[in-house]
Amino acid sequence: MLRNETSVRVRYAETDQMGYAYHGNYVQYFEIGRTEILRELGFPYARMEKDGVLCPVMSMQFRFVRPAMYDELIKICTEIRKMPDDKVVFHHELYNEKGKLLCGGSVKLAFVSSDTRRRCQVPEVLGAEMRKSFE
Amino acid sequence: MLRNETSVRVRYAETDQMGYAYHGNYVQYFEIGRTEILRELGFPYARMEKDGVLCPVMSMQFRFVRPAMYDELIKICTEIRKMPDDKVVFHHELYNEKGKLLCGGSVKLAFVSSDTRRRCQVPEVLGAEMRKSFE
Amino acid sequence: MLRNETSVRVRYAETDQMGYAYHGNYVQYFEIGRTEILRELGFPYARMEKDGVLCPVMSMQFRFVRPAMYDELIKICTEIRKMPDDKVVFHHELYNEKGKLLCGGSVKLAFVSSDTRRRCQVPEVLGAEMRKSFE
Amino acid sequence: MLRNETSVRVRYAETDQMGYAYHGNYVQYFEIGRTEILRELGFPYARMEKDGVLCPVMSMQFRFVRPAMYDELIKICTEIRKMPDDKVVFHHELYNEKGKLLCGGSVKLAFVSSDTRRRCQVPEVLGAEMRKSFE
Repeated sequence: MLRNETSVRVRYAETDQMGYAYHGNYVQYFEIGRTEILRELGFPYARMEKDGVLCPVMSMQFRFVRPAMYDELIKICTEIRKMPDDKVVFHHELYNEKGKLLCGGSVKLAFVSSDTRRRCQVPEVLGAEMRKSFE
Repeated sequence: MLRNETSVRVRYAETDQMGYAYHGNYVQYFEIGRTEILRELGFPYARMEKDGVLCPVMSMQFRFVRPAMYDELIKICTEIRKMPDDKVVFHHELYNEKGKLLCGGSVKLAFVSSDTRRRCQVPEVLGAEMRKSFE
Repeated sequence: MLRNETSVRVRYAETDQMGYAYHGNYVQYFEIGRTEILRELGFPYARMEKDGVLCPVMSMQFRFVRPAMYDELIKICTEIRKMPDDKVVFHHELYNEKGKLLCGGSVKLAFVSSDTRRRCQVPEVLGAEMRKSFE
Repeated sequence: MLRNETSVRVRYAETDQMGYAYHGNYVQYFEIGRTEILRELGFPYARMEKDGVLCPVMSMQFRFVRPAMYDELIKICTEIRKMPDDKVVFHHELYNEKGKLLCGGSVKLAFVSSDTRRRCQVPEVLGAEMRKSFE
């Protein structure tokens, strides 16, 4: 299993008139978790696109437990629990500063060639790096 | 069952460098569908909040079938398939101008008193209006 | 002078905990105005990009007079007051449903070749269409 | 004069199909700068709202020099050059990792009582702290 922890501070722009972080912005918090787990693996997503592979999102699910508030520092925990093939699933949990669970969920992404826009396998260098954690 | 159709045009701000509408923005497209189905029922969400009831999101799920492109006019289909109690589930589908399915999903919201921030039942006037469609 | 009127409804996602539409979202309302004035001219911005011309923003300014509220239908007035050369200035005003001015401002964009990323003149077809209004 | 430096990483969500960070998202980068300069002064904006003072934006202006790219770490420099009275002006500059200027601009905010929604003076504790830097 691969695991990363990072954090993000809730922006004023991200609140809504309910006084909470708007639920749609959690999509971006999850994205930050994915970005950082790939960076930690030595294969930033920016490089993946330069190498000609895109990762469009196939599905995502969120369950919201507690609201996130303006200016809170949110801990983002991200896991890859299974070796990717032509897709990869990220599991995410968000915690507030008191360590309380705010939100859990997962996002499934496809690997797609940016030239052909057809499905492909996980890029070789990234796959090799990941396999170390799954063997 | 209750059903509404409305539409939204993809903004440039909503695209990402993949050349598609960023998947996180579909959350807002679904929100537009909920807003319009409540308006059509004669009970706009703005009124619900003025009456002291908030609707925080409990969970949501999305499956993405085809990408939405800049400036496309997206059809948003929204359904309530079951009479709400202390929560309500909205089912959404998005279609492009050619009638192709882009995305399907659902969002579950709680009814919460804005004073106490505790769970409550669907507001009476809205419930009465909805029951007509479920009997 | 060229002029267009269109409208947009304030999304819940666009409010902040002050209870108003977040000021940063007005950038998108202005963008909608530009999109529609170009569509009305018969030259949608999507076509401009397909023809190989991008319009990055050079500068923008906003003065906020009154707040926009959730679910309000905002009128977006957009004007081009001077024939574009290698740049174009859009003037925008936003009004609420009571006809009160919410916000005024302007956005200056450059014409840039998408191949070379260098400055170019307004695309010929669009320029010809615009000149009719400035002569 | 008061000055703060902080940073933000460009999210994928913040890019547009031009391949740059969407210009409207710079509004949020400036907001991060304001949040951090107030935190450094020992008076976080969250506290200001708890004390009953809101800061709606009166005007803002941006000039864009170079584009920001996905995943770049942007340096946000924020200055308050004049002692606030019933309003405050923040000056912002954004730089990329190579130290190149991306964007400059300023944002003027009013101090408003959250009860009456009328203009008021800079909160006393914050004002006292700031005066030390302007004398």
